[in-house]
Amino acid sequence: MPSSRIPVAVLGATGSVGQRFISLLEHHPWFKVVALVASDRSVGQRYSDACRWVLNDPMPEYARDMVVVPAATDTVQAKIVFSALHNEIAKDLEPQFARAGAMVCSNASSYRRGEDVPLLLPEVNADHVQLVKQQRINRGWSGCIATNPNCTSTGLTVALKALDDAFRVRKVFAVSLQALSGAGYPGVSSLDIIDNVIPNIGGEEEKVEWEPLKMLGKYMDSKIQLAEIGISAHTNRVAVMDGHTVCASVEFAQPVSPEAAIQAMTSYEAPASARDLPSSPRPVIQVRVEADRPQPRLDRFTGKGMTTVVGRVRQDPLYHLKFVVLSHNTIRGAAGGSIYNAELLVNEGLL
Amino acid sequence: MPSSRIPVAVLGATGSVGQRFISLLEHHPWFKVVALVASDRSVGQRYSDACRWVLNDPMPEYARDMVVVPAATDTVQAKIVFSALHNEIAKDLEPQFARAGAMVCSNASSYRRGEDVPLLLPEVNADHVQLVKQQRINRGWSGCIATNPNCTSTGLTVALKALDDAFRVRKVFAVSLQALSGAGYPGVSSLDIIDNVIPNIGGEEEKVEWEPLKMLGKYMDSKIQLAEIGISAHTNRVAVMDGHTVCASVEFAQPVSPEAAIQAMTSYEAPASARDLPSSPRPVIQVRVEADRPQPRLDRFTGKGMTTVVGRVRQDPLYHLKFVVLSHNTIRGAAGGSIYNAELLVNEGLL
Amino acid sequence: MPSSRIPVAVLGATGSVGQRFISLLEHHPWFKVVALVASDRSVGQRYSDACRWVLNDPMPEYARDMVVVPAATDTVQAKIVFSALHNEIAKDLEPQFARAGAMVCSNASSYRRGEDVPLLLPEVNADHVQLVKQQRINRGWSGCIATNPNCTSTGLTVALKALDDAFRVRKVFAVSLQALSGAGYPGVSSLDIIDNVIPNIGGEEEKVEWEPLKMLGKYMDSKIQLAEIGISAHTNRVAVMDGHTVCASVEFAQPVSPEAAIQAMTSYEAPASARDLPSSPRPVIQVRVEADRPQPRLDRFTGKGMTTVVGRVRQDPLYHLKFVVLSHNTIRGAAGGSIYNAELLVNEGLL
Amino acid sequence: MPSSRIPVAVLGATGSVGQRFISLLEHHPWFKVVALVASDRSVGQRYSDACRWVLNDPMPEYARDMVVVPAATDTVQAKIVFSALHNEIAKDLEPQFARAGAMVCSNASSYRRGEDVPLLLPEVNADHVQLVKQQRINRGWSGCIATNPNCTSTGLTVALKALDDAFRVRKVFAVSLQALSGAGYPGVSSLDIIDNVIPNIGGEEEKVEWEPLKMLGKYMDSKIQLAEIGISAHTNRVAVMDGHTVCASVEFAQPVSPEAAIQAMTSYEAPASARDLPSSPRPVIQVRVEADRPQPRLDRFTGKGMTTVVGRVRQDPLYHLKFVVLSHNTIRGAAGGSIYNAELLVNEGLL
Repeated sequence: MPSSRIPVAVLGATGSVGQRFISLLEHHPWFKVVALVASDRSVGQRYSDACRWVLNDPMPEYARDMVVVPAATDTVQAKIVFSALHNEIAKDLEPQFARAGAMVCSNASSYRRGEDVPLLLPEVNADHVQLVKQQRINRGWSGCIATNPNCTSTGLTVALKALDDAFRVRKVFAVSLQALSGAGYPGVSSLDIIDNVIPNIGGEEEKVEWEPLKMLGKYMDSKIQLAEIGISAHTNRVAVMDGHTVCASVEFAQPVSPEAAIQAMTSYEAPASARDLPSSPRPVIQVRVEADRPQPRLDRFTGKGMTTVVGRVRQDPLYHLKFVVLSHNTIRGAAGGSIYNAELLVNEGLL
Repeated sequence: MPSSRIPVAVLGATGSVGQRFISLLEHHPWFKVVALVASDRSVGQRYSDACRWVLNDPMPEYARDMVVVPAATDTVQAKIVFSALHNEIAKDLEPQFARAGAMVCSNASSYRRGEDVPLLLPEVNADHVQLVKQQRINRGWSGCIATNPNCTSTGLTVALKALDDAFRVRKVFAVSLQALSGAGYPGVSSLDIIDNVIPNIGGEEEKVEWEPLKMLGKYMDSKIQLAEIGISAHTNRVAVMDGHTVCASVEFAQPVSPEAAIQAMTSYEAPASARDLPSSPRPVIQVRVEADRPQPRLDRFTGKGMTTVVGRVRQDPLYHLKFVVLSHNTIRGAAGGSIYNAELLVNEGLL
Repeated sequence: MPSSRIPVAVLGATGSVGQRFISLLEHHPWFKVVALVASDRSVGQRYSDACRWVLNDPMPEYARDMVVVPAATDTVQAKIVFSALHNEIAKDLEPQFARAGAMVCSNASSYRRGEDVPLLLPEVNADHVQLVKQQRINRGWSGCIATNPNCTSTGLTVALKALDDAFRVRKVFAVSLQALSGAGYPGVSSLDIIDNVIPNIGGEEEKVEWEPLKMLGKYMDSKIQLAEIGISAHTNRVAVMDGHTVCASVEFAQPVSPEAAIQAMTSYEAPASARDLPSSPRPVIQVRVEADRPQPRLDRFTGKGMTTVVGRVRQDPLYHLKFVVLSHNTIRGAAGGSIYNAELLVNEGLL
Repeated sequence: MPSSRIPVAVLGATGSVGQRFISLLEHHPWFKVVALVASDRSVGQRYSDACRWVLNDPMPEYARDMVVVPAATDTVQAKIVFSALHNEIAKDLEPQFARAGAMVCSNASSYRRGEDVPLLLPEVNADHVQLVKQQRINRGWSGCIATNPNCTSTGLTVALKALDDAFRVRKVFAVSLQALSGAGYPGVSSLDIIDNVIPNIGGEEEKVEWEPLKMLGKYMDSKIQLAEIGISAHTNRVAVMDGHTVCASVEFAQPVSPEAAIQAMTSYEAPASARDLPSSPRPVIQVRVEADRPQPRLDRFTGKGMTTVVGRVRQDPLYHLKFVVLSHNTIRGAAGGSIYNAELLVNEGLL
């Protein structure tokens, strides 16, 4: 734990993920928000004027009167920069901050596939933070970029990690029912989703089929060796505010009973370095035994929205097991995940 | 086509599927509704008083003043009986009507697994109607029972039939996003589904994993030989009024290209005996090429709700193909299906 | 009825009201769509490529391959121009078409308050069409502009007309629960309306408090004398796709019983010139006697969406009567209304 | 503040309001739940088995293993009994507990109109608790019954109280848009409310037209003199989970400016005896100045769900002012209200 609170900035502060950063950082014991960065349209305005707040919890008082600033590395005096930027903008801006010495914890997808960029879920692959050292050598940066995965990959990967450690996962069918907040604001038109399902989310299936392979991969010789797992994903948008549900069927190296899988997930713990951080999920995985859980409205706030909730673990007629995974997409799957990553990096002395 | 309209009855006339029967039969060229049957609570009332109508289309005029009658085989003078009964009640009542000489076209699941009971989708397995002859011998009935499958199996089976004919289907992963009308009225509480998903529908997965095997099976020696296909199903309830969406991944005997699959589905035709009936879907399958279709609200009424709509046909990284299927659950998947079955039976001279 | 179908154009053809025009005009006995006009972004594209169709009914075949054209009065060869334009654009474009000789039937609000512009509900104030003559003199146009009211004013005004004719209306409190389609596409974000109400619709209350006064006013000496009625409106957006509900409390010149009011509304007929047009509502008003009707999902398509549905007519403890009014906002309240206006103008020989 | 926590029971513990009691009492500084009472169907079961929990917050740990008991006054050892019973059952059971010495704080409507029964909103009419003394004399009870109003009356009455104190309210038009949780569980069918409005809630309008008169009335000579205010109410159900919205138009003894009204509501304080209780709303009223607030999803948890939120205060063309009121229906309007009442009664030494 740092001796005084570390100054942090939020890039893309007025969007829905930016808002979640601001909300989650309100009482953070290690971090103190010193700059809210947004596009030219908002620069110079009070945050409360610039932002159309969409979260259920009210806008934190500390943020209301902060003046939105532009994304200039010389004026943003923050050691950690949380990025809720769109991918194209992130691609340009994040390296500028990393070069200028900031630790960029990003929710954007731009650098997730970078060979020297960690794609992190601390409860899954905390050791991947070591990639940062190679990244600094490669790129000559004093800062760094660390990314968190796509919100649908998040819960699925946590559940697979517990199972892979215990039984070796081979193949996964995954079908998502994703919440609206994942599309940002204004995002999905009400005319498109009330009494409806949208059976596609652009670019999402590719992410869900690849990102878990990197996170479940092995860190060796300053590189990640991708996990040898096959994933097939279908992604859908449904009329849910928050919380992504994933139906998964999994094949293992050999048959696994539902009881053994439940036991493996229930007892799964984060790596030691990621276990007692301020944002550590408690527990990492909660397994529900009711016939109709998890449900997004009832279960998304488990463990303050950081816990992965699994239910309906049962035999699969084609593969070995079927189950349902739920994860809060803007907390564990976005802003909360980036904050957890930042805590891990600080804890590992990589700031 | 019969020379005069055949008198028909609707069992379970006040429920949501019963209402759909009454609506679809309004202008039917072959059938004329002569009796509306419901539980004791409704008997003796005008239908418009007994029934809380839930369909968007108004209650047909012909039904408003009909008096609801009890389920007595001696007073219900109908040659065809459409059953929208709950399964436990169907189990007792349907055989009574069949014994008394009626052709029972049932939406209930009670007799779907009967070895001498056809489980019919006329555009798929019209030849299975022949089972009725064996059924009459076995049971000594002058009437008969013919069933239509569960509403989620329906669209999936139609799509699989076209593919199986062309390429031999081996394995199927199927995940449903099902509409609320499938649960009847009052059915699902609003508190359970607004801003939510229910990741289980009791008994549904077993049906989706078995019913297609019977319908895709071969009729031989007065029996059905089940298809040798493996199916794994996950079933979910979502906040959609009508229209079941199914995400499917399919393995074939050998690789199949999306283009070949689209061609096979687009050109698929119903067996000759089922092709030109009043309720025949036109086309049987419509394949959409847009990136985000089918959608329940926009596509469920394709072909007056009788067409199976398929979209997003693409390669699957584990099996061969992925796609999305949409079918109107209370039209093609329930009342419309039973009516189509009745038309086929009449056309085959089995009345 | 014209001897051959009159060529018409739709301005703003890709928006949600534009789509409704295209749908309603599909089988119109008098009108034939010859031009679809939209913004530069769409010009030159096939309509089916340019437009994200949002209606439940599929895009009419006739429109799919039409090429979208720009808003140029010399190339758009239509005698009637239906306008679904935004107000600022309508302000400039509609007079250009009127000057060039077209009869502009507009859903925009830009000219509703013009002293020589009819604000029309044919079943209410068909005689106001005479304003067109004065308009042509004043402005030197060979064509003209005729407008239909705001969608929330529409149903309320129809109900008030029947009551005002019979009993003299003095004061009205009106609170709306408005559908999402009224805001266009993409319109209201799903994050703003699921599990929510938005208690304000910009500019709407002023329209509801004024437009009925013009429509219920008297045509005299080539002018409209506003009705002497006081209206107070609250307008709300709710999670309904189509159909605006209005709760109204009304004070009359003297007490009126619910029975008398129901009788007046049920027996109300459109003026003779507006009674037998292709889009005439049949009936003009339907009064429901159930305790919980009208409901948007169940009643919005009454009379093909052109009928005003009233229910819960009962005594009011402060004024005389309370009731609920429902009207389909994009049919009677927008595209259908403009078409009905055009029919009236043609019927009156004003083309 | 009592020296040790007072034992309390919850009647109707498995319903949706019962659940809210259990949730709100979890960390209550004065009260300790010792008995959960429900119907025969649940008696003898663990609460977590007997109850289908519908709140977003998880079921409190303390309640999970409590065994549900029957409504017997001799076995339920609680000094305070919170009643979430249905009205017909409340009518019989509540007096039994009052007679046996318990202080019954009821959310049921059965005794709200009793001349010696306080209908309480502590921030409005704390002095009405004195009725309890007369009630004990009249009925010979050692305990008592105190009621809280209907959930729609609640927020409206709080706002009217602040205005009535400052300006004398004469007449009120009130139209509600009510949440689904107000109807209990399973309550409203999803088929009835998705893409819909139900324009009636049985018995609700009578309550909204009468209950505020009692609460705004004067306590004199051991009686309540009803306030001389006229109220007209329309009540509607909309697709919102929690939070009742009311649109109100108000006439005063003389004109009142929006600014003066905002000032009166913002500065309104609860009577001294009700100001610093554990459940006291802080502030009593929050006035929002944005054009589109309050909104149920964003504002219902203001002041932990106990604050009344008002917005859109503006002039009314017929009466003097229009505004919108929002109140959390199962917190301030039900369980939280009963608990606040109990705190007041304890504080006044009436236990």
